[in-house]
Amino acid sequence: MAIEGEYDRDNIFAKILRGDAPSVKVHEDEHGLAIMDLFPQSKGHVLVLPKVEARNLFDIEQAALGRLIVSVQKISEAVKKALKPDGVRIMQFNGARAGQTVFHIHFHIIPVYEGVVVGAHASGKQADPLELEDHAALIRKAIFA
Amino acid sequence: MAIEGEYDRDNIFAKILRGDAPSVKVHEDEHGLAIMDLFPQSKGHVLVLPKVEARNLFDIEQAALGRLIVSVQKISEAVKKALKPDGVRIMQFNGARAGQTVFHIHFHIIPVYEGVVVGAHASGKQADPLELEDHAALIRKAIFA
Repeated sequence: MAIEGEYDRDNIFAKILRGDAPSVKVHEDEHGLAIMDLFPQSKGHVLVLPKVEARNLFDIEQAALGRLIVSVQKISEAVKKALKPDGVRIMQFNGARAGQTVFHIHFHIIPVYEGVVVGAHASGKQADPLELEDHAALIRKAIFA
Repeated sequence: MAIEGEYDRDNIFAKILRGDAPSVKVHEDEHGLAIMDLFPQSKGHVLVLPKVEARNLFDIEQAALGRLIVSVQKISEAVKKALKPDGVRIMQFNGARAGQTVFHIHFHIIPVYEGVVVGAHASGKQADPLELEDHAALIRKAIFA
């Protein structure tokens, strides 16, 4: 998929936002949703997505983008508190060539731990659902701590 | 450097913002600065930094962060228009373990081109200054186009 194009209402994140597909939720508010990445590059890899129909950075409105990055900040704080990584990477991909696999704008929060190699993006190695649920529970708790 | 800590006013971006160190500027306004990365991972690799003293995502105020991401969006638009990449990656690193090398918060705009491998972060391969200036000129022109 190119950078330009129409928003596809049947992308997996649209389905998750509508409640038509499952996800491991970390947090939800009126503007967005944070879920565990099913193919985590590290322990606690979270995705933050807005509740607006935007494919990428090039078709999201400024106000929605501003709210989205503040959500990324809040969830990153919780990830840091919950999992105590040694660093945190924020990534956002635009277009298939850049590594985007779902065409609903989202930010990746990827905790980095000393001595642990960060996995490849969209590696195809699906996480253990129970483990994801454990990490989500820890992060959730930290949001309100 | 850990994620936590004091802001160091002698970091290279602080010096650039004060005018005490050179840079290849793409754009500047009251809130921030966009400059060419001297060690580009691809053609048109730009850094966007705010004019506030913040080390990373964990110590920048919401309002400044919101403005920063909107600047990233604007400059990314210009990069896309000027250099016509096939994709664009946005990255932001927090803490040395995550790959952060300058401890003043900044976002990377990394254009991706079909068939061209994106270089490593902070590879040590410094770009040809004339080439950087050429790319900056093209992007600058696209900001006001």
